[in-house]
Amino acid sequence: MHELRRDPLLGRWIAVLSESVAPSDYDIPPALGKTEQSCILCSGRESETPSEIASIRMNDTLPNKPGWWVRAIPSFKPLFQVEGDLGRRGVGIYDRMNSVGANEIFIESPEHNVKPEDMGLEQMERLITLYRDRITDLSRDLRLRYILIYKNSRVDHGETFIHPISYLMATPVIPKRIKDELENAKQYYEYKERCIFCDIMREEMRVGDRIILETRNFIGFCPYAGSFPFESWIIPKRHSCDFRDITTDEIEDMGFILMSVLKKLRAVFKEDPPLNYFLHTAPNQVPRRNFWHTLGEDFHWHFEIIPRLIRRSGFEWGSGFFILYTSPENAAKYLREVG
Amino acid sequence: MHELRRDPLLGRWIAVLSESVAPSDYDIPPALGKTEQSCILCSGRESETPSEIASIRMNDTLPNKPGWWVRAIPSFKPLFQVEGDLGRRGVGIYDRMNSVGANEIFIESPEHNVKPEDMGLEQMERLITLYRDRITDLSRDLRLRYILIYKNSRVDHGETFIHPISYLMATPVIPKRIKDELENAKQYYEYKERCIFCDIMREEMRVGDRIILETRNFIGFCPYAGSFPFESWIIPKRHSCDFRDITTDEIEDMGFILMSVLKKLRAVFKEDPPLNYFLHTAPNQVPRRNFWHTLGEDFHWHFEIIPRLIRRSGFEWGSGFFILYTSPENAAKYLREVG
Repeated sequence: MHELRRDPLLGRWIAVLSESVAPSDYDIPPALGKTEQSCILCSGRESETPSEIASIRMNDTLPNKPGWWVRAIPSFKPLFQVEGDLGRRGVGIYDRMNSVGANEIFIESPEHNVKPEDMGLEQMERLITLYRDRITDLSRDLRLRYILIYKNSRVDHGETFIHPISYLMATPVIPKRIKDELENAKQYYEYKERCIFCDIMREEMRVGDRIILETRNFIGFCPYAGSFPFESWIIPKRHSCDFRDITTDEIEDMGFILMSVLKKLRAVFKEDPPLNYFLHTAPNQVPRRNFWHTLGEDFHWHFEIIPRLIRRSGFEWGSGFFILYTSPENAAKYLREVG
Repeated sequence: MHELRRDPLLGRWIAVLSESVAPSDYDIPPALGKTEQSCILCSGRESETPSEIASIRMNDTLPNKPGWWVRAIPSFKPLFQVEGDLGRRGVGIYDRMNSVGANEIFIESPEHNVKPEDMGLEQMERLITLYRDRITDLSRDLRLRYILIYKNSRVDHGETFIHPISYLMATPVIPKRIKDELENAKQYYEYKERCIFCDIMREEMRVGDRIILETRNFIGFCPYAGSFPFESWIIPKRHSCDFRDITTDEIEDMGFILMSVLKKLRAVFKEDPPLNYFLHTAPNQVPRRNFWHTLGEDFHWHFEIIPRLIRRSGFEWGSGFFILYTSPENAAKYLREVG
């Protein structure tokens, strides 16, 4: 019989099929799309992009000139705009506000055709450092309540560029998915007086069969009741609610484990599966609803990687009850064992 | 500037783009897939399906023989199974249970190639009657906490059959999406002492610009902060939390408005857009968490129709913050004005 599992963080139930679908049985279309050898995100074409917000670059090179390793620029088509006030107001019985916020693009490498997992550890460390720096900078803006870092892979699955990039989106409200995590983690903390993520990590290390790999500072694992087949999380062993507090040593280790998991996913599926990853960290300010009366003891930053292998059915959209076609134990086994 | 709107029912924010995407600018692939002229769901091949659970049929015809108009059969590949106990238990720090429940298929017509919106009002009334009857029957099973009716369109978008069918899924837990609706509606009721759906309906009728059409007993409209472009809801004017209480007069009217909205969607998009619809009604029993201390005054059954016109981005999956590419006002205008 299939098994129903409760996602301890989001409080939702998912169904794990008793016969796991093997990686080779997912239908991953070969990567299509553009094949140009360079683009305006490449080194040497800095003048064609919006002016850079921040970069990590070689000594004695100037902003908006070559010599950078990673570079943050404003989005070409922003969903949120930096200027203006929030304009919160009612409209009849409804509520609206202005689309104030920030959208940035991280250009992950000066090279056009490199994949993040192949660009070398040092480069990945620079990218993670830039993630941290941009969050730290934007979190000073009191209008912004949440900052999300995320990545889309593959131009045929919603990404616009071949050039390796990731994104930052700063929103004037805490998005629903984050709010659900915060509220459930808080509830758990109130009940147990322990961080739910720390408990999950200890349980995963005790049981072991959902672990993908472990490093000095992190574990990578397939969550017990994830909602995407081969969903993989990376959690720091040290309790910390706030990604801004990541140490230099942790940045290096984070780079290593993130690249390792991405490489393993590629190896298991024989080609690049369409995927997204995102960073979930604490909101910027103490919100009025007082999530942080516990001073961050009840939340724990982490990365979630979701391969996009399946199409959601009407049942899943209508119910929020997701179906997991490969069990996390089997997914972790494939990922653990692949070279 | 784009506009942020709060979904009053789910408490999540969505972004409505200031420049609405027109129906013709959505990329709807032409319907592909099977082209066979008959299948085992057709009249005359009853012996090839699992034995029917219920049907509405001509006088003096026998179960599992021709003569039916609509027919409910068990699913060919059930996700939930009817036999067995719930087996709720902890596994380490996690929670699991058996996949006990029911999956049924509604064969909407004896005809192979008819679309639901073309099958005639009388036939649609029979289908809605069968929906009601199956929910009524299954809600007596105390193990089942929720019953969801839903439909997928188009074989190239997750549907297995060309033959017009819809589904019933009875689950031993209240799915997350329903729980969110129930909890938010309850919170609203506690604050206002009014049903949130009744308030939404009154507001929509007052403003008018998101109304698609109105009948004696129902309104069809595009919700203020839906999460799918051209998302359309159908709500009964009479307050009722429970679809099982639908009257014969309402069934007729419901058939008419559902067919009208589906026809309008097809007309606006020039061909069949991939879509799902689902019925949200009250849970079967009084759950332990006591949603129903208000005796159903805080919930209101309704149909939601979601065209599947876009692919969700990494931002949307990572944040639960959805982007609405066509404003509900524009979507309703297209749907209202089309023949």
